Amino acid sequence: MEKKINLGIFGFGCVGQGLYNVLNHTRGFNATIRKICIKHPEKKRILDASLFTTDRNEILNDPEIDVIVELIDDVQAAFEIVETALKKKKAVVSANKKMIAEHLDELLRLQQENGVSFLYEASCCASIPIIRNLEEYYDNELLRSVEGILNGSTNYILTHIFQHNKSFEKALKEAQEMGFAESDPRLDVEGFDAKYKLMIILVHAFGIVLHPGDVFNYGIQHLNDFDIRHAKEKNATIKLIANCRKVGNKVYAYCMPKFVPLSDTLNKVNFEYNGLILEGAFSENQFFMGKGAGGNSTGSAVLSDISALTYGYRYEYKKMDQHLNYKYSNDHVVEVYVRQKGKLKIDPAVFESVSIRYESPECDYFIAKINLQKIMNSEWLNDPDISIILTENNT
Amino acid sequence: MEKKINLGIFGFGCVGQGLYNVLNHTRGFNATIRKICIKHPEKKRILDASLFTTDRNEILNDPEIDVIVELIDDVQAAFEIVETALKKKKAVVSANKKMIAEHLDELLRLQQENGVSFLYEASCCASIPIIRNLEEYYDNELLRSVEGILNGSTNYILTHIFQHNKSFEKALKEAQEMGFAESDPRLDVEGFDAKYKLMIILVHAFGIVLHPGDVFNYGIQHLNDFDIRHAKEKNATIKLIANCRKVGNKVYAYCMPKFVPLSDTLNKVNFEYNGLILEGAFSENQFFMGKGAGGNSTGSAVLSDISALTYGYRYEYKKMDQHLNYKYSNDHVVEVYVRQKGKLKIDPAVFESVSIRYESPECDYFIAKINLQKIMNSEWLNDPDISIILTENNT
Repeated sequence: MEKKINLGIFGFGCVGQGLYNVLNHTRGFNATIRKICIKHPEKKRILDASLFTTDRNEILNDPEIDVIVELIDDVQAAFEIVETALKKKKAVVSANKKMIAEHLDELLRLQQENGVSFLYEASCCASIPIIRNLEEYYDNELLRSVEGILNGSTNYILTHIFQHNKSFEKALKEAQEMGFAESDPRLDVEGFDAKYKLMIILVHAFGIVLHPGDVFNYGIQHLNDFDIRHAKEKNATIKLIANCRKVGNKVYAYCMPKFVPLSDTLNKVNFEYNGLILEGAFSENQFFMGKGAGGNSTGSAVLSDISALTYGYRYEYKKMDQHLNYKYSNDHVVEVYVRQKGKLKIDPAVFESVSIRYESPECDYFIAKINLQKIMNSEWLNDPDISIILTENNT
Repeated sequence: MEKKINLGIFGFGCVGQGLYNVLNHTRGFNATIRKICIKHPEKKRILDASLFTTDRNEILNDPEIDVIVELIDDVQAAFEIVETALKKKKAVVSANKKMIAEHLDELLRLQQENGVSFLYEASCCASIPIIRNLEEYYDNELLRSVEGILNGSTNYILTHIFQHNKSFEKALKEAQEMGFAESDPRLDVEGFDAKYKLMIILVHAFGIVLHPGDVFNYGIQHLNDFDIRHAKEKNATIKLIANCRKVGNKVYAYCMPKFVPLSDTLNKVNFEYNGLILEGAFSENQFFMGKGAGGNSTGSAVLSDISALTYGYRYEYKKMDQHLNYKYSNDHVVEVYVRQKGKLKIDPAVFESVSIRYESPECDYFIAKINLQKIMNSEWLNDPDISIILTENNT
C-alpha cells in the first residue's frame, strides 16, 4: 500500500538539489518536499526562500513531516538530527557513512525502540544497491564473503597511476588539487571511508555490529614508485580492497591495499567506480559495479530509499534475528608484501613465516605471513617508510 | 516473521540435488523436503526411495506441502503443475523461463486470484538477483533501460570465437559436442532463451506483459567469418544483446547480436557469464554480473526464493500497479550491419537511410537505419546467407 509522504531535508548541496529536481519532474513519486534546513541562508538558491530554514527544529517539530532526509557533512549534528527524528517517530534516510558507522549500535536501538524505519543505501557505495541485496537476497547462511572497492577517490588515484603511468605522488597531488577528495582527504586515502562502508556491510551481511576501532584499515598513503613497479612486474595493479569473510563461525574483515592481478574481476572497477563481489555458499560469485560517489549516484540511492518508504519498507536485520552468533575476530593470518625504505626496522620474528626476502640499495621487502592483529599492534604501522600490501594469495 | 515450510519438488537433476545438499547442510533454513516427483524411478538416487514419487498428485494433494519447487524441462507439464499448485494456494518457485514467458498473463492472474506467491528469480540470469532488484530497488520511474547478455551458451561460443580465434562454425560445433547447449540448442542460438528472460524483465522493469511473438529475437546462427573479421577490424566483439528501453511513454525491446566495442562494460562479460546494465533516470548505470547458467547458480537463486518465502515475500508488480501506461512498440529505428553472401537480395528501399554500402566478391554489406518492425516483416529475415548485427550506435 503506497502512501504519500512529506519530506524534511537537511542539506541542499548537489545531492539535495538533484533530489529536488527528480521529485518535481517525475510522476509516480508520492513525496513532497515541505522544508529544507540549510546552514548558509545568504547563498543564492534555486527555490523560493520560504522553503528554507536555518532552524532544525522547524523541521523536526513539524508533525506534517514524516520523513527526514539527512544530507549534511557534520557527523555530530547529523547524528543529533537522526536521533531526534527517530525519537519523534519520523522515518529517516541518510547517506552519512561516517555517522552511521560511528553510531551503529545506538542507531539500531533507536530504530527498535521507536519502531520506525532508518534507510541508508546511499551511505554504502552510492547507487549500488548493496544493502538492499544483502537484506533481501542473501538473507540466510548462503553468504560467505563480500569483497570490493568501496572508495571512489582512492580508486580514481590508483587507476590514474596504473593506466596513465602517473607517479603516486603526482596522482595524489592532482586529485587533491581537483578537490576530488573529501573535505578531509585522510578519510579516503587512509581507508577510513571504505572501512565505514565495510562496517555497514558487516551488519547486513553477517549481523555483526562493531566500532570503527575494531576493524583494521590501512590506506594507500605510503605507496611509492617501487611498489607500483613491483605490481606491474607481477601483472597486477594495486587496489584498495575492503573484505569481510566468514570461515566457520568466525568472521574477519579489513580494508587494505592489495595486488590485484590484471585478469581479476576487481580490475574491471576503475576510476570513481565502486565494485563488489559477493560469494555465496554455492561458490557462485555475484559482481556489482556502479558509480561510488557523486551527487547523482548518491541522489539516486536516496530516491530509492524514499520510494521504499512510501511502501513502508524497513530493514529487517535478519542476520541479527537469526542468532547466527558469528564471532568477529582479527586473529587471522594474511600474506603481505612489506616494503621498507632505508635500513631494517621490522623484526622478522613478527611474521608467521617468510617466503621471500628481497634486499637492494633502493628498498627491501618481505613476502610473509602475518597475523592481522600483529600488524594492528606493530610499532611500524604508521611509519611512512613502510608500505604494507596484501598479496594476491588472500581470500 | 519466519515460518517453517515443507517443500514438494518436481525434478531432481543437478539443481534439485544441489538444493537438497544445501538444505541439509546449513542451519538457518526453515525448509524441509517432503517429497520429490521424478520421471525416471529406475535411476539410481542418492536418497531413500520413500522420498520419491512419480505421481505428481501425491505432492499437489498433500496438505502438508506449502511450497512447490518446479525444476523440470517440459514446459506444458511445468505449467500444469504451477497452475494446479497456485489454485491449491501453494506458493511456487520456478526456474522455467520458457514456461513463464509463454504464460505470463495467466500466471499473473493465478497469483492474484489465489493470493499466493510465485517466485522465479532463477529463471532470469540464474544467480543474478535481477528480478528482486527491479522489484525492490527500481520501483518507480527512475529506470530507463535494461541491457545485457542473458544467455550463457551463446556468450560462451562468442567468447571462444573472439578470445581463442575459433571460427564460428567450429565454436558452435564444439559447444554442441560438449552438450553445452540446451536440449533444444535453437532456443539458445536463435535468441529465444534470452528473449524469454527479457520478457520477464519487461514485466518487472516497466509493467509490460507480452507474448513471445511480440518481441523480436534474432540469433547468432547466421554469423560467419566475414562478420567476425569485420568486428575485429572495428575493435569490437559480437555479443548477443537483449535490450529494453523506455523513451517517453514508449518502450521497445529486442534480442539481437551487436558489435560491442572492446572498451564497453558488456565486453567484461565472457564465457558462461551473464551481465546486465541498468540505467536510471539520473543516468547512473549499475552493472550486475554472475553465472547465468548451471546447477549451482540456478540452485542458489532457487534457494533465495525459498528463503524469501519463509518471510512471506511476494512480488508486488509495482510497475503494473502504478498504471504507468507504457506502450510497447516495435516501431523503433535501429542502425544495423546487414551482410549478404552472393547476389543482392535486399531492396535498399526497406532502409530509412544507408550510410555505407560495401560490395566485394566475398560479401556485400550495408550499414543502414531500419525500423525494427520492417526487419521482423522482411522476407529475408531467415535467409541463412544474410546476417543482421546491430552497430554500436544503438542504445
